[in-house]
Amino acid sequence: MSPTRREITGFSNPTVKALRALREKRHRKAAGRFLAEGLRLLTDARECSYLPEVLVLSDRREPHPLLAALEEAVEADGGEIIETTPDILSKITGKDNPQAVAGVFAEFDTSLAALDRSSADIWLVAQALRDPGNLGTMLRTGDAIGAGGVILLDDCADPFSVEAVRASMGAVFTQRLAQARWEEFEPWLRSGAGQLVAASLRDAQPYRGAPYSAPCFVMVGNESRGLPEPYEMACDLRVTMPMKGRADSLNAAVAAAVLGYEVLASL
Amino acid sequence: MSPTRREITGFSNPTVKALRALREKRHRKAAGRFLAEGLRLLTDARECSYLPEVLVLSDRREPHPLLAALEEAVEADGGEIIETTPDILSKITGKDNPQAVAGVFAEFDTSLAALDRSSADIWLVAQALRDPGNLGTMLRTGDAIGAGGVILLDDCADPFSVEAVRASMGAVFTQRLAQARWEEFEPWLRSGAGQLVAASLRDAQPYRGAPYSAPCFVMVGNESRGLPEPYEMACDLRVTMPMKGRADSLNAAVAAAVLGYEVLASL
Repeated sequence: MSPTRREITGFSNPTVKALRALREKRHRKAAGRFLAEGLRLLTDARECSYLPEVLVLSDRREPHPLLAALEEAVEADGGEIIETTPDILSKITGKDNPQAVAGVFAEFDTSLAALDRSSADIWLVAQALRDPGNLGTMLRTGDAIGAGGVILLDDCADPFSVEAVRASMGAVFTQRLAQARWEEFEPWLRSGAGQLVAASLRDAQPYRGAPYSAPCFVMVGNESRGLPEPYEMACDLRVTMPMKGRADSLNAAVAAAVLGYEVLASL
Repeated sequence: MSPTRREITGFSNPTVKALRALREKRHRKAAGRFLAEGLRLLTDARECSYLPEVLVLSDRREPHPLLAALEEAVEADGGEIIETTPDILSKITGKDNPQAVAGVFAEFDTSLAALDRSSADIWLVAQALRDPGNLGTMLRTGDAIGAGGVILLDDCADPFSVEAVRASMGAVFTQRLAQARWEEFEPWLRSGAGQLVAASLRDAQPYRGAPYSAPCFVMVGNESRGLPEPYEMACDLRVTMPMKGRADSLNAAVAAAVLGYEVLASL
């Protein structure tokens, strides 16, 4: 076994404790690290040039060429490889039937300054999105519509939580992520080209055939409260989607997708 | 206090145990009852003529005219009203910060035979959908696009779980629900008018501008495996949505919504 490989079989091992702690936001922030699990997701990451610093493997794993490629890449990159039991992997990822592999990644730079808005025609913007599943789904939708990334405004769920990473189906590695307060975002947006669009009931036009223009920033609000009125009023375009039933709103990730696909078709 | 009202303060009270048991599918099926929580959701239910058989109220609730209307309707209907502590409500609904009110409803008839396909132009169909949040989100989307309801094929998550009911935002009361195996669904579908449509990569045409016709049955598949090939091949129309990134699929509830809105716009 090379010096970068080791085996862990004890639940109370300090490395297991440190890995497990990454399920909690404050520990993630302190460590600047997050967990991602599953061969498919880690392969997506590798193909996007993200390698885990630590690769955790089940000692019951089946051989797989993609897993071998992953191990090789991590070793070549100077990363650490840990073999452990399915029970301990389950404890680390918090999943009853854990995948055979998990990785620890360094968190990305999520400053607005690091975004190149000219790199894509569509960007998704979420304000105070609380559900990690919705956040991950927005990342996944962003990937599908060819968005540049997702900008998280105000107090959102953590995009580096195990749940958000899982729901993103790997898009956390293909989409750019930024986190900002509205007070930072608005001046940044207005410092360059960009059309801010939101689904709204206030002074809105039908979402189909609306005059979208690139780069188009498609914004959705909090699951319960929607967008604050000043945010809506700051938009360049407010659009409305048909609501044929009793409800007056869609799930936030659904609204972002329906609107995002409409923008994609019209740009 | 009228005979239909009582107060419960003990965690080990058998009624509390019976209500709490409704969080588990086998107990729901045995009782033929399910739980829904929150004043907004219960008000939606009441306005759709669904009243809970049992209404559970927090003894710390704030007065509210909609709550008074709900209590009155349940009493007039001969239902039972239980007052209890927030802790016990939390135990019943499994939520840390419980809503001030929850209700127990009789499960609906979910047979295909009870569906009137001519009552709506769009129906959503989900095959082996495993995530209750996705299922609830599809119900909510169905309400928004004016669908008649959601047909659940094969082994889906239980639409009467607390999580699905919560994610439906009340649409579990506005949408019709049916549950069937594919072997029952296909002959039922073909026994009347109906176009079966699925998002597919097999011999598919662009989803925008495709020749949708009413009643249109929009089908999505399992979160991991998608639709079985024979189900796709049985469709009258296979359509494809742009996938600009690495992923080759969307979240199931998102796919249903993007496709559903497209059908709505073109019928």
